[in-house]
Amino acid sequence: MSGNGFGHLFRFTTFGESHGPAIGCVVDGVPPMIDLEEADLQVYLDQRKPGTSKFTTQRREPDQVKILSGVFEGKTTGTSIGLLIENTDQRSKDYGDIKDKFRPGHADYTYWEKYGIRDYRGGGRSSARETAMRVAAGGIARKILDHLIEGGVQVRGALVQMGPHKINRDNWDWDQVGQNPFFCPDAKAAEDWAAYLDGVRKAGSSCGAVIEVQASGVPVGLGAPVYDKLDTDIARAMMSINAVKAVEIGNGFEAAALSGEENADEMRPGPDGKPEFSSNNAGGILGGISTGQDIVCRFAVKPTSSILTPRQTVDKDGNAAEILTKGRHDPCVGIRAVPVGEAMLACVLADHLMRHRAQCGF
Amino acid sequence: MSGNGFGHLFRFTTFGESHGPAIGCVVDGVPPMIDLEEADLQVYLDQRKPGTSKFTTQRREPDQVKILSGVFEGKTTGTSIGLLIENTDQRSKDYGDIKDKFRPGHADYTYWEKYGIRDYRGGGRSSARETAMRVAAGGIARKILDHLIEGGVQVRGALVQMGPHKINRDNWDWDQVGQNPFFCPDAKAAEDWAAYLDGVRKAGSSCGAVIEVQASGVPVGLGAPVYDKLDTDIARAMMSINAVKAVEIGNGFEAAALSGEENADEMRPGPDGKPEFSSNNAGGILGGISTGQDIVCRFAVKPTSSILTPRQTVDKDGNAAEILTKGRHDPCVGIRAVPVGEAMLACVLADHLMRHRAQCGF
Amino acid sequence: MSGNGFGHLFRFTTFGESHGPAIGCVVDGVPPMIDLEEADLQVYLDQRKPGTSKFTTQRREPDQVKILSGVFEGKTTGTSIGLLIENTDQRSKDYGDIKDKFRPGHADYTYWEKYGIRDYRGGGRSSARETAMRVAAGGIARKILDHLIEGGVQVRGALVQMGPHKINRDNWDWDQVGQNPFFCPDAKAAEDWAAYLDGVRKAGSSCGAVIEVQASGVPVGLGAPVYDKLDTDIARAMMSINAVKAVEIGNGFEAAALSGEENADEMRPGPDGKPEFSSNNAGGILGGISTGQDIVCRFAVKPTSSILTPRQTVDKDGNAAEILTKGRHDPCVGIRAVPVGEAMLACVLADHLMRHRAQCGF
Amino acid sequence: MSGNGFGHLFRFTTFGESHGPAIGCVVDGVPPMIDLEEADLQVYLDQRKPGTSKFTTQRREPDQVKILSGVFEGKTTGTSIGLLIENTDQRSKDYGDIKDKFRPGHADYTYWEKYGIRDYRGGGRSSARETAMRVAAGGIARKILDHLIEGGVQVRGALVQMGPHKINRDNWDWDQVGQNPFFCPDAKAAEDWAAYLDGVRKAGSSCGAVIEVQASGVPVGLGAPVYDKLDTDIARAMMSINAVKAVEIGNGFEAAALSGEENADEMRPGPDGKPEFSSNNAGGILGGISTGQDIVCRFAVKPTSSILTPRQTVDKDGNAAEILTKGRHDPCVGIRAVPVGEAMLACVLADHLMRHRAQCGF
Repeated sequence: MSGNGFGHLFRFTTFGESHGPAIGCVVDGVPPMIDLEEADLQVYLDQRKPGTSKFTTQRREPDQVKILSGVFEGKTTGTSIGLLIENTDQRSKDYGDIKDKFRPGHADYTYWEKYGIRDYRGGGRSSARETAMRVAAGGIARKILDHLIEGGVQVRGALVQMGPHKINRDNWDWDQVGQNPFFCPDAKAAEDWAAYLDGVRKAGSSCGAVIEVQASGVPVGLGAPVYDKLDTDIARAMMSINAVKAVEIGNGFEAAALSGEENADEMRPGPDGKPEFSSNNAGGILGGISTGQDIVCRFAVKPTSSILTPRQTVDKDGNAAEILTKGRHDPCVGIRAVPVGEAMLACVLADHLMRHRAQCGF
Repeated sequence: MSGNGFGHLFRFTTFGESHGPAIGCVVDGVPPMIDLEEADLQVYLDQRKPGTSKFTTQRREPDQVKILSGVFEGKTTGTSIGLLIENTDQRSKDYGDIKDKFRPGHADYTYWEKYGIRDYRGGGRSSARETAMRVAAGGIARKILDHLIEGGVQVRGALVQMGPHKINRDNWDWDQVGQNPFFCPDAKAAEDWAAYLDGVRKAGSSCGAVIEVQASGVPVGLGAPVYDKLDTDIARAMMSINAVKAVEIGNGFEAAALSGEENADEMRPGPDGKPEFSSNNAGGILGGISTGQDIVCRFAVKPTSSILTPRQTVDKDGNAAEILTKGRHDPCVGIRAVPVGEAMLACVLADHLMRHRAQCGF
Repeated sequence: MSGNGFGHLFRFTTFGESHGPAIGCVVDGVPPMIDLEEADLQVYLDQRKPGTSKFTTQRREPDQVKILSGVFEGKTTGTSIGLLIENTDQRSKDYGDIKDKFRPGHADYTYWEKYGIRDYRGGGRSSARETAMRVAAGGIARKILDHLIEGGVQVRGALVQMGPHKINRDNWDWDQVGQNPFFCPDAKAAEDWAAYLDGVRKAGSSCGAVIEVQASGVPVGLGAPVYDKLDTDIARAMMSINAVKAVEIGNGFEAAALSGEENADEMRPGPDGKPEFSSNNAGGILGGISTGQDIVCRFAVKPTSSILTPRQTVDKDGNAAEILTKGRHDPCVGIRAVPVGEAMLACVLADHLMRHRAQCGF
Repeated sequence: MSGNGFGHLFRFTTFGESHGPAIGCVVDGVPPMIDLEEADLQVYLDQRKPGTSKFTTQRREPDQVKILSGVFEGKTTGTSIGLLIENTDQRSKDYGDIKDKFRPGHADYTYWEKYGIRDYRGGGRSSARETAMRVAAGGIARKILDHLIEGGVQVRGALVQMGPHKINRDNWDWDQVGQNPFFCPDAKAAEDWAAYLDGVRKAGSSCGAVIEVQASGVPVGLGAPVYDKLDTDIARAMMSINAVKAVEIGNGFEAAALSGEENADEMRPGPDGKPEFSSNNAGGILGGISTGQDIVCRFAVKPTSSILTPRQTVDKDGNAAEILTKGRHDPCVGIRAVPVGEAMLACVLADHLMRHRAQCGF
């Protein structure tokens, strides 16, 4: 397969560059007879869209998604769903400066070497603008999960670290996530971050972040060992997001420092016949298969590579050069990665739910 | 696709359980005219095989691999390569105790719920025994890399943390890796670990580990954005290994705490016309495509779930139970994950090398 | 994988219904640096588009294709290419009659039973309108073939049978194909067919056809045995076209009646070191791999199922009913299948060319 | 994907050459809890195995299949099933003559040109010996169909034409198929064929054949439009079999000569609420989706290319040469293609059944 698609049974394939006329995708494999309209997707796109606070890029994109196919009289038909978002606020002139130089930390150099050509306007295909389509596809995935699983699946995410500053997990309150511009579940941390990020922004600098995404209501049994484990596909999903450099499930790297006794999630009989777990170090996945507990995943986003401080680089002819990246950039791209991470988790779950139904029924 | 295969153009598909008659795999897509014999694979299998020190399971498996097809007169023919390893040291009686109970941290419960049946002998399909086939496939992948890339590619790995104990990276010496039973590049740490792990082992406990794998000589340009990025596939490859809970590339989670200035890998003109990078925070990958620098990846392995301390659990009928896992277990499964991590990285690189040649030539 | 995509390395994924706002596709895996503009694709779309003679549907669709991504400054960038064609001439009111009944020979009944819902307007997703995107993708495939193969590859097709009336192969003249509304290479047959089809059309009836597609200039060596043989993928490509019921390569069904002596394509040394074949019974493929001779394929298209004669059927409630299909229909859908067959052959060849380059280089 | 695997959810991947130590495959995606033992597969392998009459090759292969994994205590576990058949009767010395020459009609030349190397012993990987693994995989597919579909699915095949000699379809009697060495459903034709084929064999010549395979009991709704239609995958499945040059569904090529009125399969209310069809011109598939009628498919096998009459050819150095193929060959390879065609149809149906369950449930 070539690289612009994701998923097996629930599969979406995207196209589009930051400064082209439009971005879009085809979502394939959706079960029929699910209620679906554009507003169902728009709600998630609005969470990701730029320009909602001073802490994100000031590019103004309404990101209005259109459903072009696969839905008839308000219901999915089981055929492929075409989605389209027109780009409306491209200022290509911002990019004249970087046309011949490679921005450190960006994909400029590697695209150039791989393809011998690159659309330098706003990063072209390597732009995080592509993630809008993931969010739209994720909206459909959520509908599938809720359609097929009694009680539904809740997929949600939060920023748990900005730059070096972690939240205090004791303060975790999901209701806070919608109350601040950072998707932060800790009201106190959100306050501190506002000041911190304002400083970063004014300095023309940037910072990274860690995002946590969780899914509740996932039934036991999802995952296809041994190479398409549920956590394998989650790792892949998150690492495919722009600027992500690390992924962990449950305890993640911390697990390495624990003893077997500490790490074991003990079981005891639960009220409904299913076992209850005394802890969730595993992040809801054992042997690549969901346990019925919450799926817990974290991923790290590196600091935005577009900064105002000049950096050493080379140009297309191999000459030494300096570069600083003007334009409208997120000082912390990790913020807008929260809805993207949620969307990717929903897509993985929808895909695995159908794969499980295929092999094992339910 | 179903779950027992890995890779697109270079693809292997495995079968076999811990206590069945044999494990095996089919390796598909190998370029023709590469010298290949069993000894080329055996050298890596010998690194992974059990029973080489008191720090790994005492199961005695020679792990002799047979090439059943795809090689003619010492050269690959371009057709699929069948590999087989017979299981010779199964003691199924060790597993009578766990037949009806679910071991915490293991896949017992999830396999049972997913499939309604499980081969409880030694974990069946969920056993790390499966990784022997990855190591064999990885041996072929290395041959492909060396055949197609001038100067070859060096893929190597090391244990950089055992339990809570990290190496001192200033002591890093690749030559040390073969000098101790831990694949540890820091002679001093290896000494400390020997004492530490002996204690863990005698206590019937276990510990986790962090492994670092690196690839040198990888040309710029490998990776298929946006969903089959090189790091995406590396994340997937590592997370698919038994007991792995986290993966990071380059700075990984540390990147979140850096500023954009710190994290940027600056470039300057190099002696051969290619740019030189001042650092490698990116771990050799930008925008999902290799930069020509070393690929650097780390992953965390949780502590072995088989421990001698009794843990609470339930049985197949939902009754409360206690379990302790006797038998022959690795106190730190992370050790033997080093050659597995190397193999998986080699497989990803071989696959992407061919995918790159397909689209862009070279 | 779900069903709306075709190909491995050169892969396109389509969406859209006959009477929705637009149809479109994503073309993935295209090599970079190939000159491409909309006019390169429009030329083939114009061959397929309806309303060009009285022998095709009178629906008026300009079928103007837009390239939305993947091309920068006139050259492919190696990233996914989004294509869009707006539907401009939908008359949904034509379809009120068939809303609750199943048209024999159409997909009405099967879609209904599979999905529990169907877009009845013009056949919805099952409409041959979808083939416009195949033709567009085929246009890109041709560019790839010409870019990567010295001398280029010529893919062309012709109608060789209309209803029961076959051409006289002795009259074969490729230049005639563009001179009549049937893509017929035999001027005499074309004349006869005009009268014949006029009769069919006026009677409100329909007829089938046989199409032959050929590719010249294909190098020896394309094809991936044993399940992705070149002929395997050609068979799949042609059978996926609407209304196709049969496919054959070279001698096809005739081969069954020949002796081994008759069927063997003997070889002798050729002027350029490559062997010359005395015949091409194999249709240019041996053991699933191209021989360097012309690829020759034929496929049969059944008569258009939309006819004016009433047929017995049932409705959604299981009641007996009669149906006749008014509207604007091709009396012989096989005619417009010629450019579609060419396109699919080009797509298969482009895919296999890249797969061959991946494994074997060139 | 590389070429040695078939199927999406039910997927098998094969390896092995005619004269290597063994052939084998991995069958992936099998639902759990299905009764399975080697004898279930052996019954079909015995139908395909050589040496059962004077009309097939005298190579003596017991073709004893071993199940190496994926089955525990007589039931499938849902994990991958490894199958192995040892080659026991290789006479490689038979092939010294053809080592440097290319046999017309065989894959010798194309493999050589593609790979630069070939295992010339018995055709190596291009040998029809590989089809034994298809038959074994098909045996598992049948078990899946019977496990998941109430009443089961009956997949059966017959030879309907040998050389130029067709059966009389009025004489069709399925019970005859097991009564003669040709899988012929027409007792009279079988008698004639015996004399005919004896003449062919004694003359050192060969002939082709046409096989028909049918499946009864297939539920309505299987098939994934538009590129993974049920007939698309059947076409692919049959064309992938060695020596096959043509495939048709239902009326196939005959459909081209019919009028729309003749070709329409009318429907009327049936006794169980499902419609009854007045005919089955469609071969049980409309719009790529099964109708609930019998699936009907035919494919043509070319005459065996190994004949005793000398043919002109070239050698590896490009010199003119003559070749005749001694050894133990089937005068009509089409005969043993009957169980192979059945197996491939069963595999396609099992795959699509699971794909349908994934998307639409049942």
